[in-house]
Amino acid sequence: MNEFELIDRFFSRPLPAGGIVMRGVGDDCALLDCGGRVLAMTTDLLLEGRHFLPDADPASLGHKALAVNLSDLAAAGASPRAFQLALALPRADETWLEAFCHGLFALADEQGCVLAGGDTTRAPRLASETTQVDGPLTICITALGDLPGAAVRTRAGARVGDDLWVSGTLGDARAALACRRGEFAGVPLADATSFAARMDRPQPRVALGIALRGLATAAIDISDGLLGDLGHILKRSRVGAVVEWERLPRSGALRGLHVEQQRRFAMAGGDDYELLFTAPPAQRKAVEAAGFTSSTAVTRIGRIVEAADRLRVVDGGGVELPTPWHAFDHFAE
Amino acid sequence: MNEFELIDRFFSRPLPAGGIVMRGVGDDCALLDCGGRVLAMTTDLLLEGRHFLPDADPASLGHKALAVNLSDLAAAGASPRAFQLALALPRADETWLEAFCHGLFALADEQGCVLAGGDTTRAPRLASETTQVDGPLTICITALGDLPGAAVRTRAGARVGDDLWVSGTLGDARAALACRRGEFAGVPLADATSFAARMDRPQPRVALGIALRGLATAAIDISDGLLGDLGHILKRSRVGAVVEWERLPRSGALRGLHVEQQRRFAMAGGDDYELLFTAPPAQRKAVEAAGFTSSTAVTRIGRIVEAADRLRVVDGGGVELPTPWHAFDHFAE
Repeated sequence: MNEFELIDRFFSRPLPAGGIVMRGVGDDCALLDCGGRVLAMTTDLLLEGRHFLPDADPASLGHKALAVNLSDLAAAGASPRAFQLALALPRADETWLEAFCHGLFALADEQGCVLAGGDTTRAPRLASETTQVDGPLTICITALGDLPGAAVRTRAGARVGDDLWVSGTLGDARAALACRRGEFAGVPLADATSFAARMDRPQPRVALGIALRGLATAAIDISDGLLGDLGHILKRSRVGAVVEWERLPRSGALRGLHVEQQRRFAMAGGDDYELLFTAPPAQRKAVEAAGFTSSTAVTRIGRIVEAADRLRVVDGGGVELPTPWHAFDHFAE
Repeated sequence: MNEFELIDRFFSRPLPAGGIVMRGVGDDCALLDCGGRVLAMTTDLLLEGRHFLPDADPASLGHKALAVNLSDLAAAGASPRAFQLALALPRADETWLEAFCHGLFALADEQGCVLAGGDTTRAPRLASETTQVDGPLTICITALGDLPGAAVRTRAGARVGDDLWVSGTLGDARAALACRRGEFAGVPLADATSFAARMDRPQPRVALGIALRGLATAAIDISDGLLGDLGHILKRSRVGAVVEWERLPRSGALRGLHVEQQRRFAMAGGDDYELLFTAPPAQRKAVEAAGFTSSTAVTRIGRIVEAADRLRVVDGGGVELPTPWHAFDHFAE
């Protein structure tokens, strides 16, 4: 049972009519009907040893823990307003906390997202047969954003004939992980540094998400890799897609890698926190304008097709390319 | 630095005027102004090895994880509406999840609190020098409740002359922990069982919290022990209190223990999830009626005095009793 099967089986339940929850489990954000005001709500749990390395820079971690939530709000087109922070700390380390808060609140203040409350506790000591280990540093953030009533946008709205778009560039964060793991040598220092910045300090595409209100028919933020997250849109919208490999936006640094690595990292890398969205061809100029006003690159990478045509990646000649990688699954080792 | 100093130092920041957050860090719930509708929001993080034992019954854990959040909503007088659930699981164990969901959703359905969304991930493996250990089962819930606009109630409203009240009985959950740790023998099985039920299946006092709207001047839910949580009301309200030991409501099972244990467990036990609240003496009949309509016992246990008179516990003759125990601190070992 993978993460998504588990969610479907145990946590997807019918929503009661007339309740506060308009949309629930299965999208980037839940939507709450607050009487004239719609709030988008999202939660991300980040664990040392799974989502970040034990020696992660605390300021970057503070930034990233909030950024991944704001990225979900961006997919829904919501304006960030408030967040809750739950922290389990192996120790009450003031130096660490100061740096963590610096990164966290710099992004929160920039985005107008106010810390409303939360919970702090000490991580447990865990016993094995021979020793004790500190429990992992654990960060759980729930973020809330405002949505103008009419602008509800989910993963389910893609239509056959829509263009497929992505923001920014893909694969850099995955390349940073490869560098850190020592998976390849010979990467120029400047490239390694720019990869690392993308992994450690993802920029949530909040302004683009807002600018796309009423334009994008479906959207998701790419956290588990382009193809895996595109799969969620296709499944929820009951459509297929053709992705043109050569159109995928890649940084200059990524283009320095072997083409097989470029493909794998850009299509199945994860941790990109870019927006993947669909819009009708009639809106091309408007989408480009939304990118321009939000100072965010947007690239058309393919189109939505019938479900029967499934998801295919093609080269410049229209020939299908193999994509033997899987999306990141939190329950695979 | 203890938990509360840490929160004060790093997370208490001035709230921007005109934002969605009406009240932030430092109360049971944050309050959000959603345009005509006020939402109360609270987050609790529960960790295996700190908040519950590794062999905890999953159905009870599902109940308790939501109950501790609903208890915070009860203190604010809010009606539960929705919650987010973040889970880190050492493994995708279907039997465990089925039981956990059974306990969780039974309480959620009873209280009309709908799962809106969340996050599931696998707990990391943690390496020590000699071995690997599964990271702890981790449960983070953020709950939202509705508040009628005028009924805002916090820890800060207690006035000199107010009565001090508590719901239910105190100390039973702490006695259950002592039984489980084998701290005392000879407790009758029926008593041990009733202690265990209080520890494993706390009943959030939601109906009482709602019935006390407009009556209670301040309220808190007792999670860290009566005296420690009363201390939060006193500090925030800038008042003192006299607690009459003999008035403290204790179950028949607790009265079977040595009086020193009764005192320690009832006053500094923790995990009670009862409401502690203040109300003017003119409202005594109304408070009793609120208890009656919500089928919840309420007991007057003392009164609010000037801050200079601090917090004192007295016996039936008015003589101060020593209270050498500390409230539970998540950063003390």
